[in-house]
Amino acid sequence: MTPSDEMDTKTHERLLSIAMKWYEQIKEGAIPSISMPTRTKQNIEFDDESEVWKYGDRESVRSAHTAKSALHLLKMSYVIWFLKTQLIEKRSSTLRELYYISEGWKRAKFSAQDESNFLIEDLEILTDLQREAFHLRPEEDGATIFGPLRIREMTRRGERTIHCQDDVGEAGYQIPSNVENIDLIEHDANFVIAIETGGMYARLIENGFDQDHRAILVHLKGQPARSTRRMLHRINEKFGLPVLVFTDGDPWSYRIFASVAYGAIKSAHMSELLATPRAQFIGVQPSDIRDYNLPSDTLTDKDIAALQSELSDPRFASEYWKSQIELQLKLNLKSEQQAFAARGLDFVTQEYLPKRLTEMGILS
Amino acid sequence: MTPSDEMDTKTHERLLSIAMKWYEQIKEGAIPSISMPTRTKQNIEFDDESEVWKYGDRESVRSAHTAKSALHLLKMSYVIWFLKTQLIEKRSSTLRELYYISEGWKRAKFSAQDESNFLIEDLEILTDLQREAFHLRPEEDGATIFGPLRIREMTRRGERTIHCQDDVGEAGYQIPSNVENIDLIEHDANFVIAIETGGMYARLIENGFDQDHRAILVHLKGQPARSTRRMLHRINEKFGLPVLVFTDGDPWSYRIFASVAYGAIKSAHMSELLATPRAQFIGVQPSDIRDYNLPSDTLTDKDIAALQSELSDPRFASEYWKSQIELQLKLNLKSEQQAFAARGLDFVTQEYLPKRLTEMGILS
Repeated sequence: MTPSDEMDTKTHERLLSIAMKWYEQIKEGAIPSISMPTRTKQNIEFDDESEVWKYGDRESVRSAHTAKSALHLLKMSYVIWFLKTQLIEKRSSTLRELYYISEGWKRAKFSAQDESNFLIEDLEILTDLQREAFHLRPEEDGATIFGPLRIREMTRRGERTIHCQDDVGEAGYQIPSNVENIDLIEHDANFVIAIETGGMYARLIENGFDQDHRAILVHLKGQPARSTRRMLHRINEKFGLPVLVFTDGDPWSYRIFASVAYGAIKSAHMSELLATPRAQFIGVQPSDIRDYNLPSDTLTDKDIAALQSELSDPRFASEYWKSQIELQLKLNLKSEQQAFAARGLDFVTQEYLPKRLTEMGILS
Repeated sequence: MTPSDEMDTKTHERLLSIAMKWYEQIKEGAIPSISMPTRTKQNIEFDDESEVWKYGDRESVRSAHTAKSALHLLKMSYVIWFLKTQLIEKRSSTLRELYYISEGWKRAKFSAQDESNFLIEDLEILTDLQREAFHLRPEEDGATIFGPLRIREMTRRGERTIHCQDDVGEAGYQIPSNVENIDLIEHDANFVIAIETGGMYARLIENGFDQDHRAILVHLKGQPARSTRRMLHRINEKFGLPVLVFTDGDPWSYRIFASVAYGAIKSAHMSELLATPRAQFIGVQPSDIRDYNLPSDTLTDKDIAALQSELSDPRFASEYWKSQIELQLKLNLKSEQQAFAARGLDFVTQEYLPKRLTEMGILS
């Protein structure tokens, strides 16, 4: 049995055990039910030990004694049946396709894709598995990687061994939606930089930053997909390489950093797989806007509100973030990472990043 | 001299000739000026012969006899100087970086990126070259390709020869922002399918459609980037392969098809390089929504207005489009391409596409 067959068998068993429990309940004359953590914002806590977002202790029980909850369990059993078939046939499908497939399920048809997505998250919690184990994938692929890293991807067409500098085009290696099929073979890197914008990612490649500093560059493409965050987590865990996050200097970008480092509320049940608590923020820091006199824009009302809410967010509860956010509110300015171009195309790779990496103890 | 050196020399000469003309004008005591096609919607025409959008005959002259126009020429000369330096140094930059670089140009500083983007389009028209020749790139990369195609990409790290099935991961080959660096070496394909959504692209890969029908699959990622359209144009031109466009069944998706086939208004000056007039629309057709009883949504007011405007759009001036659009208005419905999943995950590759390809004379 290959590792992927073993995984399928485990997934199959866990999915069926949900239905098996209902069967036992019915046999005993009880009303079938499921119980799981309450999935509201109020029940998400920052776990100090693992440093990621997790569900708290509140539990909800859904039992088939109301028509609404019975319908929910009916939909779940249809989905379990569909996923079971998919596992046996070694097929996969997108979350969107799953929603359309329910067209044929009469009363168990989903009314919108939000509903089927949410049910899949429920199944992830109940089985303690990622949706990739169910052979479900999101619409979007992950981002791209460029740097001294060799991976082996198990594709439907066989194994592909790819070096993320030597075997790829200028745009890099495209992270697939399911990164569990990837083996991280070896690297020759000192650290990983995860970069918000495509323009800065291309700048670092053009300037040879990956070669000069033996850096693995990962393009986040804005708010990163699950597969991108999972990839960063795995590289950090397997190789112990520092992961540095380089974004624009505004409150929305700080949230990109926070979702890489500590997880996102929407995927709180997967934080331990997706988050990289040791990830560090490089910039753009509010103090950089001041120190380098970067081209900037005035904060909007929404920016200010977002910064203020970050001041009470446990993910930003450090002296560093407190002083940076307060400075930004005082400056009333934000800057993009590409604003460094105002000081020349080499400034970011020759001056800014080496200085920050030294400050952070990554370069000596 | 390599082909890329030759291209740089030609670009250098053409850029400088703009400034040289001003110099001659000044020497003769004339006010420096540029003259170029008027860049308004009213001056864009559908060229029946080449079947793409082009600028019409109206010309505008910008001469430095008003302060505003003089400032425009000043900005253009700064940009020409910057691009010249960039060509000599073999550097490149993003459109966003160019905007930031103008920070140091005092009165010639751009007030917004729209302004610098527009000026670059002016330079494309004046030099009859693509911005790639200036070593400028957009923020976003192109989409991905999966299929029996071998390409050679000239990267900054040397040549990479990549087969778009055998040498790539499951997500395919990532099209770089500058496809002029790519040689199309060889293929073993019958046709190309350009696909709007990532979900359908992944479906065709999973179902082995590229193998069974020897198809090159190109993911458009919604409204396609210039580099993606240029790549389709080049594959069609070099190999003479049919290019088929597979999108959702709504007016916005028909515009995606039209921009692949006939060009977009914004890049009308580049249509002959970017458009593929022989591209054909596969679906989702309004008649498919009816014939296959696809899951669908009601048209919104905006959808209806867009369909009505397409009825008078020269790009849709055919009996085929007229009857399809009128049918859609009558049905008052739209469907997504992934809606085929309601009939099973194999339906699209086993039934729908083979039937359409036969109707269209691609399969016999």
